[in-house]
Amino acid sequence: MPEEVLRQAAEEMLDWHGSGMSVMEMSHRGKEFIGIADEAEADLRELLAVPANYKVLFLQGGALAQNAVVPMNLLHGKSVADYVNTGEWSKKSIKEAQKYCSVNVAASGADSKFTAIPARDTWKLSKDAAYVHICTNETIGGLEYHWTPDTGEVPLVADMSSHILSRPLEVARYGLIYAGAQKNMGMAGLTVVIVRDDLIGQALSITPSVFDYQQQSEADSMFNTPSTYSVYIAGLVFKWLKRQGGLAAIEARNIAKAKLLYDLIDQSTLYSNAVNQADRSRMNVVFTLKDAALDEAFLKAAKELGMSQLKGHRAVGGMRASIYNAMPIEGVRALVELMREFEAKHA
Amino acid sequence: MPEEVLRQAAEEMLDWHGSGMSVMEMSHRGKEFIGIADEAEADLRELLAVPANYKVLFLQGGALAQNAVVPMNLLHGKSVADYVNTGEWSKKSIKEAQKYCSVNVAASGADSKFTAIPARDTWKLSKDAAYVHICTNETIGGLEYHWTPDTGEVPLVADMSSHILSRPLEVARYGLIYAGAQKNMGMAGLTVVIVRDDLIGQALSITPSVFDYQQQSEADSMFNTPSTYSVYIAGLVFKWLKRQGGLAAIEARNIAKAKLLYDLIDQSTLYSNAVNQADRSRMNVVFTLKDAALDEAFLKAAKELGMSQLKGHRAVGGMRASIYNAMPIEGVRALVELMREFEAKHA
Repeated sequence: MPEEVLRQAAEEMLDWHGSGMSVMEMSHRGKEFIGIADEAEADLRELLAVPANYKVLFLQGGALAQNAVVPMNLLHGKSVADYVNTGEWSKKSIKEAQKYCSVNVAASGADSKFTAIPARDTWKLSKDAAYVHICTNETIGGLEYHWTPDTGEVPLVADMSSHILSRPLEVARYGLIYAGAQKNMGMAGLTVVIVRDDLIGQALSITPSVFDYQQQSEADSMFNTPSTYSVYIAGLVFKWLKRQGGLAAIEARNIAKAKLLYDLIDQSTLYSNAVNQADRSRMNVVFTLKDAALDEAFLKAAKELGMSQLKGHRAVGGMRASIYNAMPIEGVRALVELMREFEAKHA
Repeated sequence: MPEEVLRQAAEEMLDWHGSGMSVMEMSHRGKEFIGIADEAEADLRELLAVPANYKVLFLQGGALAQNAVVPMNLLHGKSVADYVNTGEWSKKSIKEAQKYCSVNVAASGADSKFTAIPARDTWKLSKDAAYVHICTNETIGGLEYHWTPDTGEVPLVADMSSHILSRPLEVARYGLIYAGAQKNMGMAGLTVVIVRDDLIGQALSITPSVFDYQQQSEADSMFNTPSTYSVYIAGLVFKWLKRQGGLAAIEARNIAKAKLLYDLIDQSTLYSNAVNQADRSRMNVVFTLKDAALDEAFLKAAKELGMSQLKGHRAVGGMRASIYNAMPIEGVRALVELMREFEAKHA
């Protein structure tokens, strides 16, 4: 989280803008909170240049809930959906969707041990898929789409939880985008859905009302009490992003941050990253040490410098530097410095 | 929200207990947040004396999501569930459950225009219901169960969103209790489910994994990223409740607070409350003015004293004083004073 967002939240905790209330205490139907939610939506629309024919919904349940909610809302009477498997998060989406439809895995990174995103011309799309689902940034494998697949008339659905707002985005290329807030939009508890308006209104009858995009859209995401404080915090993050110069400026920073790490790794004899260069994630830089016996010493050295979250996901091992928007370049430089020193000692 | 909870949250915003992190920034898998969640659960269990054979789940989506999630998890192959209709919130639960099963409205307050809770001996329960559902406090009508229905072997399910933690509770009389956090447990975004362990593990195949009680129970409510900050705030509220002397002490305070208002209303010629005396809510005191033309002047006088939330729900009109746990008795006294003065001028 950007420190200035946390400072502002702390300052406003007991009295939001002279209202005498904490945001936590506001009725979601009161004019104060409606103002907060409207401004958050407007800022998000501005940052992402969301076209007018897309709805922005502030929901709960996280991206994993959306893995079920997307088929519930988008099958539209069809029985098949196409999914591209690029790693752990895609797999979760596929598994969940199988509760509601037949899933065609149109392409899989398994052949490359999930070190590359399958090229579009290798995808075997179904003839009658309701939609095509991708996960545009895989946090565990460290892969990211740096291109937008063309799926013709079939809506493209993307789980963008871990890199949304890290770069400009051509929303109109997608039918639906969803993202949990906890990486680049603030705190857990908020799920943002951006959906083209012609795709809503045909939810399965088993869809819980709070997850019916149409019902939530008609109620401005207030069919039920939204996660009010998470919306407020996301709004503060959106303002911070605008102060940084918007997504083009953030993207430039993120490119620079990732380059520092990948350059070092590529020049190193100790560290390596197996991901196809064109598919490397700017948000999650994974790397392994030549000798896994050094992992513990590396993590210890990092911890002494206050870097405590470098251990790779248990599913893949190794190391992972997650350098989301809020990580300043100085933090990345400190890590690069540590990695250089560690290599000098152990290479 | 208790002011001391807000103060503590503000103080800890940038650095929780010397960790150098905000709670908002913590990984839900890190030892810091796991400690926070474990302590919140332990305190909640202590406050409510939750028996060991009950699971406590911290979920998202609010009580309205649970209206769908309860039948998804508890139908157990049966096709009927019994619901008691005591007002607006019961009606929402009934409407949602009808997506998943046949609903038998075992009793309805409609005959009394929702001014009384139907006596247990009037309930027409089904022979083979999966469960019996009640809403134990209706915020809009201002009704509250001051007794626990006996439903024999059939699990009793209660939406307690608006009065949980306002009084001691015999959890073992219920199969499942659910509640959104935003009334007496902190902020919106957290839903607490307390469920007897033999009732979980038979969810319908259409149940989203994040709402499968079994999967969430096995994962200590971390099948997906929980609404971490809401759990933290709830934990602070639980500590505050313990400092107040626990639920017996809170109940005594809530009885005293409600008595101040009901006594005034019953002695008044201007104000009235139509709810059956034995069913009156301690949390939501509804009342009407003899002449609705005075409503506006009353609301204006209240607003001048900083009381801005007295307007009754649009579904029923009139006035409503919501006096949840965090409302100090001084606040109720100020309202009583205002009502007396207003009556003296207008009666």
